[in-house]
Amino acid sequence: MTLKVYGHRLSQPSRAIIIFCKVNGIDFEEVTIDFTTGKHRLPDFKEINPMAEVPAIVHGDLKLFESHAILCYLASAFPGVPDHWYPADIVSRAKIQSILDWHHSNLRRGALNYCINSALGPVRSLPLNPQAAIEDEKILSASLSKLESVWLKGDAKFLLGNFQPSVADLSLACEIMQLEVVDEKDRERILRPHPKILEWIDNVKSATSPHFEEVHEHLQEVKARIAFLKSA
Amino acid sequence: MTLKVYGHRLSQPSRAIIIFCKVNGIDFEEVTIDFTTGKHRLPDFKEINPMAEVPAIVHGDLKLFESHAILCYLASAFPGVPDHWYPADIVSRAKIQSILDWHHSNLRRGALNYCINSALGPVRSLPLNPQAAIEDEKILSASLSKLESVWLKGDAKFLLGNFQPSVADLSLACEIMQLEVVDEKDRERILRPHPKILEWIDNVKSATSPHFEEVHEHLQEVKARIAFLKSA
Repeated sequence: MTLKVYGHRLSQPSRAIIIFCKVNGIDFEEVTIDFTTGKHRLPDFKEINPMAEVPAIVHGDLKLFESHAILCYLASAFPGVPDHWYPADIVSRAKIQSILDWHHSNLRRGALNYCINSALGPVRSLPLNPQAAIEDEKILSASLSKLESVWLKGDAKFLLGNFQPSVADLSLACEIMQLEVVDEKDRERILRPHPKILEWIDNVKSATSPHFEEVHEHLQEVKARIAFLKSA
Repeated sequence: MTLKVYGHRLSQPSRAIIIFCKVNGIDFEEVTIDFTTGKHRLPDFKEINPMAEVPAIVHGDLKLFESHAILCYLASAFPGVPDHWYPADIVSRAKIQSILDWHHSNLRRGALNYCINSALGPVRSLPLNPQAAIEDEKILSASLSKLESVWLKGDAKFLLGNFQPSVADLSLACEIMQLEVVDEKDRERILRPHPKILEWIDNVKSATSPHFEEVHEHLQEVKARIAFLKSA
């Protein structure tokens, strides 16, 4: 029963799933759905995810979308995945779930929209929107502050003071990595006030190396494309 | 070990948790945090939820926020809760998790903001924003269409074609019930095109009666307060 992962390496949650599979030695086929050219809206893909969004997986009879649900499913369905990724203990699991839920309307909302409105728009044939980006940055920065003060307090190596990463570390770190595509000065302004976040992302990178770096390489290609579109 | 539920019956996710506890005979103490007068921002409550939002729970040493994480925790921590609420089977569970994750940036985003911008603002000392409400309604209506076509297709009594409700049914039904506070004509315009949604909400109500109705009674008080503020 082969696992198929439908995604795109420009999509933060797609990257989290691809890295998770590679780190845990889960055998999978990566199917690229180029949402920058609208391939996620084609009928074939909507058969897999009627919401027309990447990522999605097919595993046997199961078609599943929403990256957090996918990560938790993979951690449960593949027996070789170490417990720290999604602990069986219900209290530890609940705390991880709480971060994943919080992510949606806070860090993800801020980071996703900021990146689209300040840099990625043209890659998806959308205009930039500097005015909206100002509001997005406020949500993003407030989310980074909360992440740092609530889940990275003390000498925590990973979220919740854990010694090993969970699916929440991977999901949120991939979200913040998206800022690689924005202007250096913007990225610097947003991330510099959060040294603990930078240190934590390095920890997630080390714990998932070399897959983290390899899967994120695509962002440099996108950055080059943004520069080309700007100069054209 | 008493369970404390910190919430407010005007909050959709708070209602879902209160109803869940009542239906499943979970003994709990309901602590009302009146966010309409800013009580969620007081230091005492931020000790429980540093994000300053309702609902949150305290159960022994565990402090937990985010309603979906709370519902899944309660279903796992209290042995008397029937399996259908949050199935142990990982495929069934993954599908429920997918709905819960989708909820955040779709149905919840549309419904929450629509209700605040079109009706609830003044109750929280915020201005109404009819222009924003038009955009919110688009997100809300698109979400209702998706809910109907993806998870309520066929003769499903509950989401995913299930015969008994899950935590996703309860969470999403409580979200849509918030529309009780808006003008009749607005509610009618939004919900009338979705007969399956109305039927499904009746099913959730029946499966959780009389608690569903009792916990939602508060919305009628809020509606009277909105009318009073309007006439003042």
